[in-house]
Formats: sequence, C-alpha cells, structure tokens
Amino acid sequence: MIGLALVHYPVRDGKGATISSAITNIDVHDIARTGRTYGSARLFVVSPIDAQRELVQRIRGHWVEGAGKDRIPARKKALERVAPVASLEDAIAAFGELAGRRPRVWATAANPRGRETIAFADARSTFADEPTLLVFGTAHGLADPALDGADGLLAPIDGLDDEFNHLSVRSAVAIILDRLLGAR
Amino acid sequence: MIGLALVHYPVRDGKGATISSAITNIDVHDIARTGRTYGSARLFVVSPIDAQRELVQRIRGHWVEGAGKDRIPARKKALERVAPVASLEDAIAAFGELAGRRPRVWATAANPRGRETIAFADARSTFADEPTLLVFGTAHGLADPALDGADGLLAPIDGLDDEFNHLSVRSAVAIILDRLLGAR
Repeated sequence: MIGLALVHYPVRDGKGATISSAITNIDVHDIARTGRTYGSARLFVVSPIDAQRELVQRIRGHWVEGAGKDRIPARKKALERVAPVASLEDAIAAFGELAGRRPRVWATAANPRGRETIAFADARSTFADEPTLLVFGTAHGLADPALDGADGLLAPIDGLDDEFNHLSVRSAVAIILDRLLGAR
Repeated sequence: MIGLALVHYPVRDGKGATISSAITNIDVHDIARTGRTYGSARLFVVSPIDAQRELVQRIRGHWVEGAGKDRIPARKKALERVAPVASLEDAIAAFGELAGRRPRVWATAANPRGRETIAFADARSTFADEPTLLVFGTAHGLADPALDGADGLLAPIDGLDDEFNHLSVRSAVAIILDRLLGAR
C-alpha cells in the first residue's frame, strides 16, 4: 500500500529557514490525480494551520460532493483520496491505521544535504514489501527534522542538465511515482 | 536535440469538439522547468490567439528580464527557453531552424483512439537518433489532425489504476520526459 504526504510544515524557504508554506490549489489537484494513477491510497496534505486545512476540505468537497462531481467525474476519484492533516506524525498515524501497521516512511529531497539516499532501482525492487508513505516538501523542500525523522531518503531526480535542479513538486511527484511503480 | 510543444489549438473539449484552450500560467512554468531538467532546447507554447501569445511573453519577460530574474534565478534558466508560436506548423519550422533540419514530430495522447503507438522502450532507444519535437495537448488532448499529422504517437501512460486516465498535462510531460531520457 502506498500513501503520499504533501508537507507545508516543516519546510524551508529560499534561505534555509523553517517556514509553514501556503496550500497551492493546483498541487492538491495534480498530485491527487497522479497519486490515483499509480494506486496511492491517500494523499495527506499536511498543514498545522486550521484555515489551510479547511481550504483543502473545500477543494475536496467541490469535486467529491459539490458541483464538480458531475462535471468531471474522474476528478472525484482522485480528490476523494485527499485528507488534510495537522502534522506529518498525524499522516503517518492515519496511514498506519489504513494499512494495518506503521508504514515505512520515505522522504524526498532535491538536495539531500549530505545524507545517504536510496537509489531508485533499489527503492523500486523493495517498494511492494511493506506499506510506504512517500513524503514531499513544498516551498524549498522538507526541513531537516522531516528528513531525519524518515526511515529513508530517496535519491534526488537526476535530469540531464546537471546545473539545473528546480522541478516543481507536482512534476517531482509524477516522476518519482513513475520510477517506483510505472510499467517497464 | 529535444523540443516540446504545448498545444492550445487544435485540442478537444470534453465532448470531442475541436477548441482553442486558454493558456494556463502554471503549465508554462512547470513544463519549462521540467523541460530544462531534461535538456529540452525549446518549449513552444502554441496558440493562434495574439493576446494569449502576448500573455506567454509577459510571463517569460517577468522571469527572464523582469523582477523575477533576481528573486529566483533558476526560473530564468527555464523560462528563457519558452517561445510562443501561432501554430504547430510554426513550432516545427522554428525547431527545425534550431536543429538544422526538420525534426521528427511525436505526438502524445492519453487515448490514441485506435491509432498505432510507439512503446516507451522503443522510443527511448531511438530518441537520440534525430532531433525530436514532442507534442502535448492541453484541455482533453490533441485533436485528430494534430495526431494524424505527426510522424509517430507515443503510447499512453499506463498507471496502475486501469480505470483512471486523468493525469494533468504537467504531470504527463514530466513522466514522459523521464521515461525517454531519465537515468536508469
């Protein structure tokens, strides 16, 4: 079983300070759609701010129960798996209840900042072994406590342009899920 | 050499009619960033509507020459490869000038509607052979003339949930470029 966590706290700003970032509407849509494509059971949207979690519920409600449901039915199938939670710990606990055991937690980072990482080939070959929660940071990426608290850290995405390391989190989620789970 | 074309006409609406779709700001950003990551030389944003192409120029200008350039320098490196053009034919011609010969044109579709497609493994192994323009449709995908006019059509992205076929174009571009060019 796979789950995704999209983290808005604790994440880094451009200077490395820890911040709480704002929910981005299109992140919720794109990542819910990509998650559903690859069989993710949940997309936890992590924010400690009540009004931000309410925003996620409103987006979800529009597509799952509101006017969007009939207009684009496929959107409902993606958005119904979205769950706002207050912390990464809450996401891990909720996914553990769903999976019947504590999940393995794998963080992601464009810059591992010296940490050991798991190569995609290894991650892919062991991915089905146990329930896994993949954790993605918004803004300039997950802050140190979120990386250090995970059971593992996936390798950064290596493009062809070595000097360019600036994918959107929406694109990074798509590439990582396809590398771990896509048909070969 | 690789180029990308993001097409807003001719594309389909939800009922299959041919329409001209509106430029989406985040498409330009995300796909420019993904393109740069995988070494794409150009992102042609195709719209026959003058005001829409001007919008693309304004977005590009903000990051390449305006206030955005200093705030997020990496964004400049992505957006400077964006070029608005009036038609897919113009995109092919402009990319041909850049590449020094007419490029191979490969279309993409979530639903090939009965057409023969190129498997990703085959596409990957021949990708470096000649300059290739990858063509992506917005809205509900490229209309028939855009598919029929291409030299080939890539296979649809096969996720794990067979009944769900509803990726954003932003996510589809990321997955396809990684399948064709990502490290293995």
